Amino acid sequence: MPHHAVLTTVSNQPGILFGLTKVLADRRANITYVDIIHHPDRDAEIYLEFSVDADADLVVAELGEVPGVARVEATPSFGKIYGKRIIIMGGGAQVGQVALGAITEADRHNIRGERISIDTIPLVGEEALASAVRAVVRLPRVQLLVLAGSLMGGDIAKAVAEVRRKGLIVISLNMAGSVPDEADLVVSDPVQAGVMAVMAVADTARFDIVRQQNKRY
Amino acid sequence: MPHHAVLTTVSNQPGILFGLTKVLADRRANITYVDIIHHPDRDAEIYLEFSVDADADLVVAELGEVPGVARVEATPSFGKIYGKRIIIMGGGAQVGQVALGAITEADRHNIRGERISIDTIPLVGEEALASAVRAVVRLPRVQLLVLAGSLMGGDIAKAVAEVRRKGLIVISLNMAGSVPDEADLVVSDPVQAGVMAVMAVADTARFDIVRQQNKRY
Repeated sequence: MPHHAVLTTVSNQPGILFGLTKVLADRRANITYVDIIHHPDRDAEIYLEFSVDADADLVVAELGEVPGVARVEATPSFGKIYGKRIIIMGGGAQVGQVALGAITEADRHNIRGERISIDTIPLVGEEALASAVRAVVRLPRVQLLVLAGSLMGGDIAKAVAEVRRKGLIVISLNMAGSVPDEADLVVSDPVQAGVMAVMAVADTARFDIVRQQNKRY
Repeated sequence: MPHHAVLTTVSNQPGILFGLTKVLADRRANITYVDIIHHPDRDAEIYLEFSVDADADLVVAELGEVPGVARVEATPSFGKIYGKRIIIMGGGAQVGQVALGAITEADRHNIRGERISIDTIPLVGEEALASAVRAVVRLPRVQLLVLAGSLMGGDIAKAVAEVRRKGLIVISLNMAGSVPDEADLVVSDPVQAGVMAVMAVADTARFDIVRQQNKRY
């Protein structure tokens, strides 16, 4: 089915998303992405990506007739603009170095047509990190997580095991604690860890993370 | 109204989001965030954040009764876990240096209770960058954009003017082209640009971007 993306400007009242999704459900559209964008000083916007067999212009017109919807416009999809995401989390010193490697390598692949974003969050504490690891699988377009620190274990290691079972690839820096034992791949040099993370998700690279399982560099 | 976050496991068929939003509309809930998470090898998940006056347990039970919904669980919200976002885009060399400054500074604020994420996309080309700039205002939780490169102008400058009118703060590196003329603030050193970006959005910092309007460092 053809894929579409639309941005709607809506009044900030309950029931609007219900109205929009009703139109799409009636047209047997498959909604693949939704974002609600709040603005402090003006009307909220709802961004939708969906695939549908019905005529897109017709669906857009129907969305525009939903009560509370002021405007609907077709727009390019996020997948095309921001592409795959790699998340790096942990201590600021190491996250920065992993990001440096990953950003430089992503630049090389994005020039050849890839779209890879490198997202980071510097964060300390077992509980905060474990929650952030578990939440990664709920973020859109994330393919790989790098844990960058000097000591991570306990509940963070449990969280790593959980997200790996859900299909996420996890690279860990070589560090103290039990997190490296749970990762797909362990790397000592943070810059190289960032480069390998990008190579693992880039279609323009030849690097098979499955062949690297449990290896340490 | 109390704020809640739930993660639902759903079958991959049209109409599920319609069913979930119907429950929330009937309960006069205000939906603040939605994510649809697709998995290659198992059922999709829909993550919802909403505020509602009605009893949350009752609403969760009703969400679980929607046809196609296998499971509903309460979960911590993204806002609490990943917080505010700063986006850095442009050439890999500069994006890496800005990220280094921003990540190190975010680390210092996150230790004091802030939650600031630093997201980057290395990207070249006027058209690709202009599209990415325009799309930033559609991403959730983004407060500030840093443009990091050596030459940016034309449609990118137009896109910067557009997103600033929509309330986004934009910092530009000092560079060739017309983008610096459109930014809130121009900084020559990329590491300092990253640090200032974090200071501008951190509640734990005293840095007023309004007082820095059109300044150049």
